[in-house]
Amino acid sequence: MSTQAFFQSDSVGRHPKPSLSHFFSPRSIAVVGASETSYWGRNIFRNLKATGFDGRIVPVNPKRATIFGLSCIPTLRDLKEPVDLVYVATPTDTVASVLDDAASVGIRHAVIIAAGFGETGAHDRQRELEEKAASHGITILGPNCPGFVNIAAGVSAYGQEIPSDMKSGNVSVVLQSGALATVIMKLARTHGVGLSKLICMGNEAVVDTADVIEYLISDSETRVIAMFAEQFRDGRRFLDLARQALRAGKAIVVLKAGRTPEGQKAALAHTGAVAGDEAVVDAALRQVGVARVRSLEELLITAGLFASGVHLKGPRMGAVTASGGACDIIADRASDEGLELPAFSADTRKALADYLPNFATVQNPLDTAAVDTLRETGTAAVPMDVVAEIVSRDPNVDFVLFLGFNVVPQTPPEELEAQRQADRMAHVRAMLDSSPIAIVPVSLSCMEVGPFAREIYEANRIFMLGGIEFGITAVGHCVRWHKARDAALVHAGIEASAPPAAATSTRKGPWSEHTARKLLETSGVPLVPAELVMSAQDAVAAAERLGYPVVIKICAAEIAHKSDIGGVALNLQTADAVCDAYERVAKAGRGVDGANVEGVLVSPMRPRGVELFAGVTMDPSFGPTLAVGLGGIWIETLKDVSLRVLPVSQDEIETMLLSLRASPLLNGARGGPKVDIAKAAAAIHRITEASLSLGDRLLAFEINPLWCLEDKVEALDVLIVTE
Amino acid sequence: MSTQAFFQSDSVGRHPKPSLSHFFSPRSIAVVGASETSYWGRNIFRNLKATGFDGRIVPVNPKRATIFGLSCIPTLRDLKEPVDLVYVATPTDTVASVLDDAASVGIRHAVIIAAGFGETGAHDRQRELEEKAASHGITILGPNCPGFVNIAAGVSAYGQEIPSDMKSGNVSVVLQSGALATVIMKLARTHGVGLSKLICMGNEAVVDTADVIEYLISDSETRVIAMFAEQFRDGRRFLDLARQALRAGKAIVVLKAGRTPEGQKAALAHTGAVAGDEAVVDAALRQVGVARVRSLEELLITAGLFASGVHLKGPRMGAVTASGGACDIIADRASDEGLELPAFSADTRKALADYLPNFATVQNPLDTAAVDTLRETGTAAVPMDVVAEIVSRDPNVDFVLFLGFNVVPQTPPEELEAQRQADRMAHVRAMLDSSPIAIVPVSLSCMEVGPFAREIYEANRIFMLGGIEFGITAVGHCVRWHKARDAALVHAGIEASAPPAAATSTRKGPWSEHTARKLLETSGVPLVPAELVMSAQDAVAAAERLGYPVVIKICAAEIAHKSDIGGVALNLQTADAVCDAYERVAKAGRGVDGANVEGVLVSPMRPRGVELFAGVTMDPSFGPTLAVGLGGIWIETLKDVSLRVLPVSQDEIETMLLSLRASPLLNGARGGPKVDIAKAAAAIHRITEASLSLGDRLLAFEINPLWCLEDKVEALDVLIVTE
Repeated sequence: MSTQAFFQSDSVGRHPKPSLSHFFSPRSIAVVGASETSYWGRNIFRNLKATGFDGRIVPVNPKRATIFGLSCIPTLRDLKEPVDLVYVATPTDTVASVLDDAASVGIRHAVIIAAGFGETGAHDRQRELEEKAASHGITILGPNCPGFVNIAAGVSAYGQEIPSDMKSGNVSVVLQSGALATVIMKLARTHGVGLSKLICMGNEAVVDTADVIEYLISDSETRVIAMFAEQFRDGRRFLDLARQALRAGKAIVVLKAGRTPEGQKAALAHTGAVAGDEAVVDAALRQVGVARVRSLEELLITAGLFASGVHLKGPRMGAVTASGGACDIIADRASDEGLELPAFSADTRKALADYLPNFATVQNPLDTAAVDTLRETGTAAVPMDVVAEIVSRDPNVDFVLFLGFNVVPQTPPEELEAQRQADRMAHVRAMLDSSPIAIVPVSLSCMEVGPFAREIYEANRIFMLGGIEFGITAVGHCVRWHKARDAALVHAGIEASAPPAAATSTRKGPWSEHTARKLLETSGVPLVPAELVMSAQDAVAAAERLGYPVVIKICAAEIAHKSDIGGVALNLQTADAVCDAYERVAKAGRGVDGANVEGVLVSPMRPRGVELFAGVTMDPSFGPTLAVGLGGIWIETLKDVSLRVLPVSQDEIETMLLSLRASPLLNGARGGPKVDIAKAAAAIHRITEASLSLGDRLLAFEINPLWCLEDKVEALDVLIVTE
Repeated sequence: MSTQAFFQSDSVGRHPKPSLSHFFSPRSIAVVGASETSYWGRNIFRNLKATGFDGRIVPVNPKRATIFGLSCIPTLRDLKEPVDLVYVATPTDTVASVLDDAASVGIRHAVIIAAGFGETGAHDRQRELEEKAASHGITILGPNCPGFVNIAAGVSAYGQEIPSDMKSGNVSVVLQSGALATVIMKLARTHGVGLSKLICMGNEAVVDTADVIEYLISDSETRVIAMFAEQFRDGRRFLDLARQALRAGKAIVVLKAGRTPEGQKAALAHTGAVAGDEAVVDAALRQVGVARVRSLEELLITAGLFASGVHLKGPRMGAVTASGGACDIIADRASDEGLELPAFSADTRKALADYLPNFATVQNPLDTAAVDTLRETGTAAVPMDVVAEIVSRDPNVDFVLFLGFNVVPQTPPEELEAQRQADRMAHVRAMLDSSPIAIVPVSLSCMEVGPFAREIYEANRIFMLGGIEFGITAVGHCVRWHKARDAALVHAGIEASAPPAAATSTRKGPWSEHTARKLLETSGVPLVPAELVMSAQDAVAAAERLGYPVVIKICAAEIAHKSDIGGVALNLQTADAVCDAYERVAKAGRGVDGANVEGVLVSPMRPRGVELFAGVTMDPSFGPTLAVGLGGIWIETLKDVSLRVLPVSQDEIETMLLSLRASPLLNGARGGPKVDIAKAAAAIHRITEASLSLGDRLLAFEINPLWCLEDKVEALDVLIVTE
């Protein structure tokens, strides 16, 4: 982790935050605005008790002598020694003076509940708070923040309800929404997902989401980061962190609001956040192996699967169930998630045919045809376990999806049965440990894991995916994550940073085509030949050299839309035609006020081919982003475009081209022209390099069309805009 | 309901089944193969007790005197009077003789568990069973069937586990999978969905799924039919039933396996069923208002919403929550489901601004900004109830999605709190009853409704949608269903049946274009003019009459692909060209062995326009099905096609055209030719009528292209195949 990034500052009042691990593990806490009756003031004490906090608690309230049996002090200034953290539960207009008090006794960490800052438009008040925090050297979580829970360390500074019986584990949750915290904890309990920290971000005046993610990546107790996000304020920093997480083997699962235009509108109104373009967000998260989910259930269940540490080494799934109907549903859902259900090997088929009832159909997914009611194993295993083991030895599958747990009741069974179940779960644990590939237990439907089941699952470290619907989605995320991680370990560093800027012009605004062509040339982008001429005579000479038919175009930075003003003439066959056209085009150029005409470009006219579009724009959050597609109706009307945040490899550009709906047209569908996709991808890769050479000055960089015909690829036109 | 359809028979051994309501409500039951130890034999008795059966139970077992304290008889022949139903739990090879015994004492109804019939390929054995049932006059559910549960009537004939505490209600479940029955009952309990009947279909040797649906439509205790289906054997009968259900106000919710090619493969292997083309299934179900779901959770939650009787009169949703994060998620999911979130009216905005804390943002979806912790109402209502009421009076919304129930704990609270909650729920009930529009309670996430919450929900007839994810999907289904129902009540009968067949040719196989054109002409389909000629001279005369340029084509039923043999000449500008082309084309026709050449067709050549495709094919399950699309890459490569089972209205055909991905091309995107969509739809409607006039003889009926240019629409070519 670079110290540079750690101390990165992009906001007034931001200051180094080197101590987040201390921030989230305080051993002494003062509560200002402590109360036995207010919602927040009351919950904080109950929660400290519930999370098992055994450090010092100091209630601060000038009007009370004790609160819940603890001695009160009137103000923070009355502290004899500083506490590790102050929880500020007082009204908005008192927050500043509480921070003054805190600073005066050396307190460095504060959680601030009060709302009424940036989120309601009171940006001045929030800026004052940031400045005060900076000048006092106080790290703040909030304002407008209910706080955090650190289940692993047995401490909380949190003013909402914490459900009872929270399980400790290695999933840490980061929320850009306080009100979702309780339901997320309940869902974690429902699905047996153990949590390490749960951190609500509030307005992020000082500590922001990226700071917390950076901390969690370095936190040895955290294996999975589950997020609810409304925005990525600094998308590129988030992507860098996500790459770090991927290399560190920590999964990030994100429920990002604003998938749809409606959702974006809601997110905007809620926090005043500027949501990035959602298609870019989608592409960016996929590039760095972040699992994007769409529901709270999927968030927790996916996080739980990652936390179980299961290694899904590929997409080939073997599924074992006791229900033909479940087989059908599994097959449909697997197909949705890009998972494969290969035929079992001959050995597996034989072993299964020997073991299963004769009316069973041996196939994948496999219905075990009630084998549990017809066979006995003589051990703690049930017959379905034997079936799962057979399938786990099949070389055709990468992992086994195992729906064999219907036998675990949710309510405590009688003693003998309880012992039988406990013995079986111990057997299952041993089976999971000794299996050559992952065996993933999943239940038929998304239901609460009852107390008895929870107990024997926990005792045997078994994570049960909550139902086929969310379970197979989670499996899909996990397979894609392992693929991304493998790729990241191979390509470590290659995609991590952009090449240094090497601008060839200091121009602001649009460039002339001639200037832009020079940059493309330097960067090795294949270009249609062109000559810049200043007279009709020179135009004809150029045409003779280049060969008829030719195209001529006016060349001036100020004339971006050349056709609109009559600045283009196509398909000129003779010297006379070139002469006429030159005069016409040059005159059109002279007619444009303020245009600084450099001359007229003469190029050979290319025959019909496939016209690609390759453009790089500057996303406000994620930076330079490549869009590729086919021109015409495909981009304009059908929005058929593939996106990646830069930099991106040539291989990945091929993948982008092949993912277009219009991709059959690249392969010469219906006898049309064909594209050499590798060559086109190589050209686009150079286009991205050329665009990155402009550094932060880049605004837009568009090749339209990139003409392709068989093995020929050429940029026919280019538009560059810098600031 | 037509008696005709009721007695419809399409399978060997099928016979009238007029008594399904008696079948599923027996007052006396014999169990053959009764046992205290076998899985099935044991469960049947436990279940009869659990469902509260108080009729006569007769165990049949030659080896035992009593079973669970009930006197055994050796065989059914020892019965003194017939029972209403016999549950056959004996092995496969004994089933036939048990039926003989049953018939001998006058038993008319049987459930057969045993597997090893059609589902394993033993079709002869199943046919023998069907014949025996027919000759004995016994109605059979099964074989390969665990039976049914009738919770409403307090009776079961069911050999698997029934969860405790099942709630009685008006959802009936029909399953083409026995193994999913238990999990469906558990899910119903989890989400507080009351069931009337749950019926497993088994192999459908005698009673089939359509019979059961027909019975449930007439069953006064059933309001909603929830199905798991692997196939629709007689798709047209199912559609007729679905239309009946729609008019009767009963919703059908279907989880149909085989959405994807993988899923179809699994379904095929599981039951040997022939799955219909999935795109046709999708289109067909949508046409008749059937809600197609993709998960077990969605099945139960959607059924529960329908069962609650809530009327969602349109797609405009007002959402009330206590969480900004939830607002974001709701907005995204609403957009997925085609729901709208209109701005609140000025009156609503003012009322909300007055009532909510000043830091709340008044918008839709609405975050009530913790109003519950900051205000008191002085009544049993909580402040969020007041907010929901304000929104329910807004004329801009059709219904309110209400996330106001976080306060209901799952575990029983102390007495005072319990009373407070109970009082509040009574208030909520009154609010729902008096609201001018539907208020739909939904929880944040899909979790089990605990015993206390269940009790007060049931007492107040409150159905809580299980989480935003499935809840908003269910709301989408419900809105679409109400729309379909409104349309069905207006158009009752119009779409219910096809016009009578009026074939103009008794030809088998492909028709000649000339013959096919006659049918189109009779049906009023606009056609490009054409003259059938037998000589070059006549061809020129025709061309002069029609106007140059012309097209000439060989005309013979046996030559379907005219271009492939050189049987077409395009764009002929002169008499000489026509002469030459005639000889060439006629010669090509003479060269085709067995072709019965009728002559050569001369037509005017049409300029470039938009070329539509309109084809009717015979789906094996649903019958004549219309496909429309654009020709070329759109149909062939991108599968951009819209489908409807016939008949279909002209308006609906317009909807089909506008739903194509390529639809911008119909509106002249990028300066291309424009289509008069109403005229094109009218022509396609006549094409469907022409195809239906062929009745069951229709195999394929394809107009390709249907040429469109501004207000001109003409069929340029036609292919008809009959059998």
